[in-house]
Amino acid sequence: MASGEFDLIARYFRGLGACRDDVLLGVGDDAALVLPAPGEAVVLCVDTLVADVHFPLDAPAASVGHKVLAVNLSDLAAMGAQPAWALLSLTLPETNDAWLAEFARGFSALACDAGVALVGGDLTRGALCATVQVGGTVPPEQALRRDGARVGDAVYVTGTLGDAASGLALWQGGEPRRDADAVLIERLHRPTPRVNFGTALRGIATAAIDISDGLAADLGHILQASNVGASLDVDAVPQSAALQARFPAEQRLRWALAGGDDYELCVIAPPEQEAALEAAAQAENLRLTRIGVIEREPGLRLQRADGSVVTLERSGWQHF
Amino acid sequence: MASGEFDLIARYFRGLGACRDDVLLGVGDDAALVLPAPGEAVVLCVDTLVADVHFPLDAPAASVGHKVLAVNLSDLAAMGAQPAWALLSLTLPETNDAWLAEFARGFSALACDAGVALVGGDLTRGALCATVQVGGTVPPEQALRRDGARVGDAVYVTGTLGDAASGLALWQGGEPRRDADAVLIERLHRPTPRVNFGTALRGIATAAIDISDGLAADLGHILQASNVGASLDVDAVPQSAALQARFPAEQRLRWALAGGDDYELCVIAPPEQEAALEAAAQAENLRLTRIGVIEREPGLRLQRADGSVVTLERSGWQHF
Repeated sequence: MASGEFDLIARYFRGLGACRDDVLLGVGDDAALVLPAPGEAVVLCVDTLVADVHFPLDAPAASVGHKVLAVNLSDLAAMGAQPAWALLSLTLPETNDAWLAEFARGFSALACDAGVALVGGDLTRGALCATVQVGGTVPPEQALRRDGARVGDAVYVTGTLGDAASGLALWQGGEPRRDADAVLIERLHRPTPRVNFGTALRGIATAAIDISDGLAADLGHILQASNVGASLDVDAVPQSAALQARFPAEQRLRWALAGGDDYELCVIAPPEQEAALEAAAQAENLRLTRIGVIEREPGLRLQRADGSVVTLERSGWQHF
Repeated sequence: MASGEFDLIARYFRGLGACRDDVLLGVGDDAALVLPAPGEAVVLCVDTLVADVHFPLDAPAASVGHKVLAVNLSDLAAMGAQPAWALLSLTLPETNDAWLAEFARGFSALACDAGVALVGGDLTRGALCATVQVGGTVPPEQALRRDGARVGDAVYVTGTLGDAASGLALWQGGEPRRDADAVLIERLHRPTPRVNFGTALRGIATAAIDISDGLAADLGHILQASNVGASLDVDAVPQSAALQARFPAEQRLRWALAGGDDYELCVIAPPEQEAALEAAAQAENLRLTRIGVIEREPGLRLQRADGSVVTLERSGWQHF
C-alpha cells in the first residue's frame, strides 16, 4: 500500500533527531502530538531554503540538511527559546537516495545537538527546496522580542560577521580557491545557531534578532519595532582572521554590515548587564562584541573610528 | 530598511485569519509566541502544494490559498484536533501583487472560518509552491490516531469521493466543459476540511485519516498502523450526483477508490457508536456512509455488492 513518499519518509526521516519525552506521537500519523510544559509559551517559526537562491545547487546535501534546520534554530535563539520539535517539508525533482541520506545525516546531527525531535514532514516532487518549521518553548514574559530596545542600551553581536558572504563569493568561484578558504565556505554551508546563548539571554537582553539578511537590515528591524535609532562603530564590528587575511578592507566591511547569512545574534541590553552578558558568552566560548548604542533619533548611523560616515548601497539581502 | 519581502508580508499577511487570545506575538518578529491551554497536546502538521504537481499552474490564486490551508486543516481534523495557528511559507517566481492579494483572500477566508490565526511566515523567490504548517490542540488521550482500529469496527466515510479527481480531469480539459462541471472543479480547488466533525469524533471513533491520496491508500495506512485488515463494499462508497451524471461507472469507481484530493474523512468506530456518529454528522449537515468492516486478516478487500472482487492498478496518488 505504501507509495514512494512513505517508503522514503520511513527510510530517512522516522526517528530523526533527539528523542524527547514530550513527543507523544511523531512522524507517521496525520499530525504529530507534543505536550509543552505547563505555562510555557510555544514559539513557532518557519524558513524555506530554495536551491540556487538560498544555497548553491551544488552545495553538499548534508550542509543543506544542516542549514535549513540551523536558520530556524537561529530564529528561536533570537527569541530566547529552547528548541524542541521540527517539521520538514522537502521538495525534490526526483528521488535521489544518496542525496536524501546525506541531507538526513546533516539535519539529524544538528537536531541531536540541539535536542530537537523531527516530528513530521512532507516529501513532494518539485524544484529542490526545503522548508523547516521549528517549535520551542519559553516562559512568555522572558521571550526576547524586537520591540524591547531602549535608549541607552548597548548593541552587541556574537561571533564574527561577513564570513558567510565571503564564503558564497568563494564557492561561486569568483577567484581560485585556497586551502584557507574552507573555513569561510564552512561558515556559509554550516552556520552555527546560537541556541544556548539565546536561552541564556532571558532576563538579561531587552531585544535580539538573528543576522540572516545582514547586520544593518536586521538591526533595522529592531530599531523600527522599538521606535528608536542607533549609532554603530563599524570598525568595532568583528571580522574573522580568515576573512581579514583574504579580502580587502572595503569588501570585508560591506560583507560584515550587509552580507547576511552569518546567523550570529545581534543583542540589545542595558549597559549594567554587560558583565552578565560576557559571562553567558564565555560559558558558550562565544565571542561577544559591543558595537554601538541605542539612541532616540530614528535611523541607523554607521560611523568609522575616525568619525567618518559609512553609507550602504543596500542594507541587506533583498528577497525580491 | 525594509526589503521587498517585508513590505509584501506587511501588506498581505499581517493579521490574516482569526484573532486569537492565545497568540501573544504574531507575524513580524523572529518567531511567533502562542500559549496553548494547560493540559492540551499541541498537534502539528505540514503540507506543501507544488504548482503543476498538486495544483494546476493556472488554478485561481484564491483557490490555492484556500487549498494549502484546507489540506492541513484536514490533517488536524483527522486527529480530532481544534485548529489554532498557521505558518505560511510561500515561494514565488516573481512579485505579483494581484496573485498575492487573491491568494491571501482565499487563505484568510478559510482561516477565519476555522478560527485559525496566521502567526508567521516566509516569502521567498523560487518555483511557485506553498507550504503551510498548522498547529491545533486536543486533549492528548482523545487524539484520533491511525493505530486504534479494532477487529469488528465499522469503516465510514464523510461526503462523497471521486469528485476532486474528476474535477482535475475536467480542469485539465480532457473534454469540453459543461455548466454542471463547475461543482466538480470546485471540489478540486476548494476542498472542505471536516474540522468540526473531526473534533466531534473525540471519544467516539477509534481511528481516522483524511482522504488525500485516495481511499484505498489512506485506509491502508490505518490498517497497517493498526495491524488489521478490512473489507469494503465498493458499491456503498458514496458518489455525488454530479459525478454520477457526468462519467461512466468504471471511471467513477476508480476515482472514488483511488483518486484522492477529496479531503473527506475515513473514520473507524465500533458499531455501537453508530448513532453517536450519525448525530455528529447530522449536526454538521454532513453525509456519513458506512462502507465496510475491520477484519483480522491483513489487507484491504474491495468487493462489489454481487460478490465480485475489484482490483486497483494503483491504490492512490504516487508522490514519486
